[in-house]
Amino acid sequence: MSVPDRVSGVRRILTSTRWADVVIHRGVARWVEVAEDRTADFRGQARQVLQQIDATLQSLSADRRGLLQVLVFLADLRQVSEFNEIWDAWVPADAPPVRACVQAGLGAGCLIELVVESALD
Amino acid sequence: MSVPDRVSGVRRILTSTRWADVVIHRGVARWVEVAEDRTADFRGQARQVLQQIDATLQSLSADRRGLLQVLVFLADLRQVSEFNEIWDAWVPADAPPVRACVQAGLGAGCLIELVVESALD
Amino acid sequence: MSVPDRVSGVRRILTSTRWADVVIHRGVARWVEVAEDRTADFRGQARQVLQQIDATLQSLSADRRGLLQVLVFLADLRQVSEFNEIWDAWVPADAPPVRACVQAGLGAGCLIELVVESALD
Repeated sequence: MSVPDRVSGVRRILTSTRWADVVIHRGVARWVEVAEDRTADFRGQARQVLQQIDATLQSLSADRRGLLQVLVFLADLRQVSEFNEIWDAWVPADAPPVRACVQAGLGAGCLIELVVESALD
Repeated sequence: MSVPDRVSGVRRILTSTRWADVVIHRGVARWVEVAEDRTADFRGQARQVLQQIDATLQSLSADRRGLLQVLVFLADLRQVSEFNEIWDAWVPADAPPVRACVQAGLGAGCLIELVVESALD
Repeated sequence: MSVPDRVSGVRRILTSTRWADVVIHRGVARWVEVAEDRTADFRGQARQVLQQIDATLQSLSADRRGLLQVLVFLADLRQVSEFNEIWDAWVPADAPPVRACVQAGLGAGCLIELVVESALD
């Protein structure tokens, strides 16, 4: 469900009343990804969040080459090399986003959480 | 005190020389909220930061419906359900922002810290 | 190496295939700084990341007065007063950015990591 907001320049994709799936403003889409299946192990969750980014980008008629910034929160930073392996195979080598990666406490079962910004033009 | 900056497109609301209270650029306001009274318990601090967002929005002639993104840092992620209760009563159910919520180490007495982005148009 | 992207409005400064050094879109530059010499102690790393911001700003024909937001991740939040001392001597007192500062787990040897946004106009 995409709802044009009273604030004219903002578009939201909503499936929850707690947070937006995606918020779009002035050519920038912002969203957060956690793995839908949080019973998966780290590699499984890492692959999921990147696939979910692809799906979100597709719903926005955008692609990985428009990604501006990805903030990566890992529950255990020792898994960063596993993440890098999966990330490197996924990210466009000639058009990667800015990336920060730190360890933080995440929600139940959540091993990775991404805050994503993508250009739409 | 609102100071037009030498960089022509940036406006800052300043009460400190260490950081800006709010920075506005190209229709987006960015700011950080921690509870002014950090002797309050978690619920008290959570209510304060949301009230402080309202006050900041009002000073910008904006409202909750323009919020784009809120990054929530909690000192103890076990308090997320208490936060959700207070958040759900506050956030516009049909126009919520993107939200991430992780646990991080916060300053002395600080139980919650928010990084906020809001559209002004 | 600065590469105009297929997404027309995005410009990237790249020296790695894993992440961009800087991504520029609609008048905002985004990047991440960690100290190049991570054998340095905290003060050394703090001074380095701020000097690296200066160098990045200079490469963008910008300066500290355009900084919009700095998210500071410290490996040990007890070092925030040391950081503030170095920061206060560096940041323009009449044009500081928004700043959040929290403790998070950082990469090997890394004592401070900054996520920076700067206006270019």
